[in-house]
Amino acid sequence: MANGLPDPPRGLLTADAARSLVDSVDAFLFDCDGVIWKGDKLIEGVPEAMELLRKLGKKLVFVTNNSRKSRRQYSKKFKSLGLEVTEEEIFTSSFAAAMFLKLNHFPPEKKVYVVGEDGILEELKLAGFECLGGPEDGNKNIKLEADFYFEHDISVGAVVVGLDQYFNYYKMQYARICISENPGCLFIATNRDPTGHMTSAQEWPGAGTMVAAVSCSVQKEPIVVGKPSSFLMDFLLKSFNLETSRMCMVGDRLDTDILFGQNTGCKTLLVLSGCTALPELLDASNKIHPDLYTNSVYDLVGLLQK
Amino acid sequence: MANGLPDPPRGLLTADAARSLVDSVDAFLFDCDGVIWKGDKLIEGVPEAMELLRKLGKKLVFVTNNSRKSRRQYSKKFKSLGLEVTEEEIFTSSFAAAMFLKLNHFPPEKKVYVVGEDGILEELKLAGFECLGGPEDGNKNIKLEADFYFEHDISVGAVVVGLDQYFNYYKMQYARICISENPGCLFIATNRDPTGHMTSAQEWPGAGTMVAAVSCSVQKEPIVVGKPSSFLMDFLLKSFNLETSRMCMVGDRLDTDILFGQNTGCKTLLVLSGCTALPELLDASNKIHPDLYTNSVYDLVGLLQK
Repeated sequence: MANGLPDPPRGLLTADAARSLVDSVDAFLFDCDGVIWKGDKLIEGVPEAMELLRKLGKKLVFVTNNSRKSRRQYSKKFKSLGLEVTEEEIFTSSFAAAMFLKLNHFPPEKKVYVVGEDGILEELKLAGFECLGGPEDGNKNIKLEADFYFEHDISVGAVVVGLDQYFNYYKMQYARICISENPGCLFIATNRDPTGHMTSAQEWPGAGTMVAAVSCSVQKEPIVVGKPSSFLMDFLLKSFNLETSRMCMVGDRLDTDILFGQNTGCKTLLVLSGCTALPELLDASNKIHPDLYTNSVYDLVGLLQK
Repeated sequence: MANGLPDPPRGLLTADAARSLVDSVDAFLFDCDGVIWKGDKLIEGVPEAMELLRKLGKKLVFVTNNSRKSRRQYSKKFKSLGLEVTEEEIFTSSFAAAMFLKLNHFPPEKKVYVVGEDGILEELKLAGFECLGGPEDGNKNIKLEADFYFEHDISVGAVVVGLDQYFNYYKMQYARICISENPGCLFIATNRDPTGHMTSAQEWPGAGTMVAAVSCSVQKEPIVVGKPSSFLMDFLLKSFNLETSRMCMVGDRLDTDILFGQNTGCKTLLVLSGCTALPELLDASNKIHPDLYTNSVYDLVGLLQK
């Protein structure tokens, strides 16, 4: 109360905090759903904030747990919303799944069963892997009767589970039987987000719900490659000459974005434009505290120009 | 080693143990999947064992977590397999869900959304409740695009989740939105079995997988009405003049059947004809120990006639 005014709440992004943040980092890592857009709708002020940060010489990187699209497809989505973002600036959990297999020398003669959408299939194929499942198994129905026998491919050596709007009992059984019966079969989750802003108006079940179902049926925990796992950061650091202590992770989820930032040594900024509301952040039960929080990335523009 | 022979393993059903068990109980509670049948195939020796126990004056009761059928439908299934079992002798998790709502004075003007199959719908309707969902929502597809808005019925006051071979993203979102947004909406699980012998040759994802998915999306735990919850036992005790200390629960799952028997004060007999194999029972990590175990209910016949 030095100036006679009450102190701002701890962590609230003020003009001073915004200037000090921008001075102390070289790169901003942005989550996408709930930060840049909701569904196909751009969040207000995003282009202005991106333009300002680029003008200040900051590197911008986009790190999303949403596995529905590949990096190429996300780059197109940015373009369709009027934003110029290259594939190299985008790190998706679908890409992370493919890179995890590559880094771990997944044998090329083995196949990958996918519970998920096109993004995962495209990244896996780009990385040279043969895939089964995905959207085309969305129409397969099970007839749970009498002596029905469920066939599966014994050359499946990994199951990748991500967000899947075509999720069904056929895929659940396919994933279960590969993980349980194919020796050494890997169980990889793109991420465990319980919900996400898949459309502009509403939240929807996230990849975490598909992962929970498969995990229950096999009584095993998956390897998680998306946020908050630090796996993606390794690629990011290989691609760019950056230090994590000079990065700021900007996201709308405490248990993925902010935790990812903290796990990897970044500064963290929570925006309230997505899944997390202020009461949740301030609730005594919340144990994940970002360095800073504000309503949306647009606030950076106003605060930095004060 | 009084007779010069090595002692049998602790808990193994011997002729002495079988006679002492039969003398000490008035009723046998049988799980069905993996004990009486696998899929639509009767397990060997079941008719003989049932006949013998009935001849010895024992009450037989069937307690199943499988919610796919109603009590009426199960009675028909027993008949089709050549076994005479009345509806009153059958306690299913679908019936338990309906009785839970009735006992808790669920308002008749409210509706129940069902993630599950016909058995749940039939029991709920018999108990006088109006239902939505079930198999007819199995064909509904989601188009996760742009400004799509998902409508739901705000008069849904309970969501019941059971085994559902028609599980899909539409039902996941319907359940999520009712539980999250309709004030006071109950979240009821028929059971949490991770797998079950839904066909004779293979295991399949159980109701626990659907429950895990919905539970993840709402970040809440359900009320469980099937085994191992003791809820079903209350009805059983009301229906029959029995004491739990003079009952034996016979089942193939440690974490549902045997735990249910133990939670309610019954004697417990594990059969190895279903989900549990001997190494799992004897593994140091297993914390649930039945009083007795044997290969299948057929063993009772041989052992009691020795």
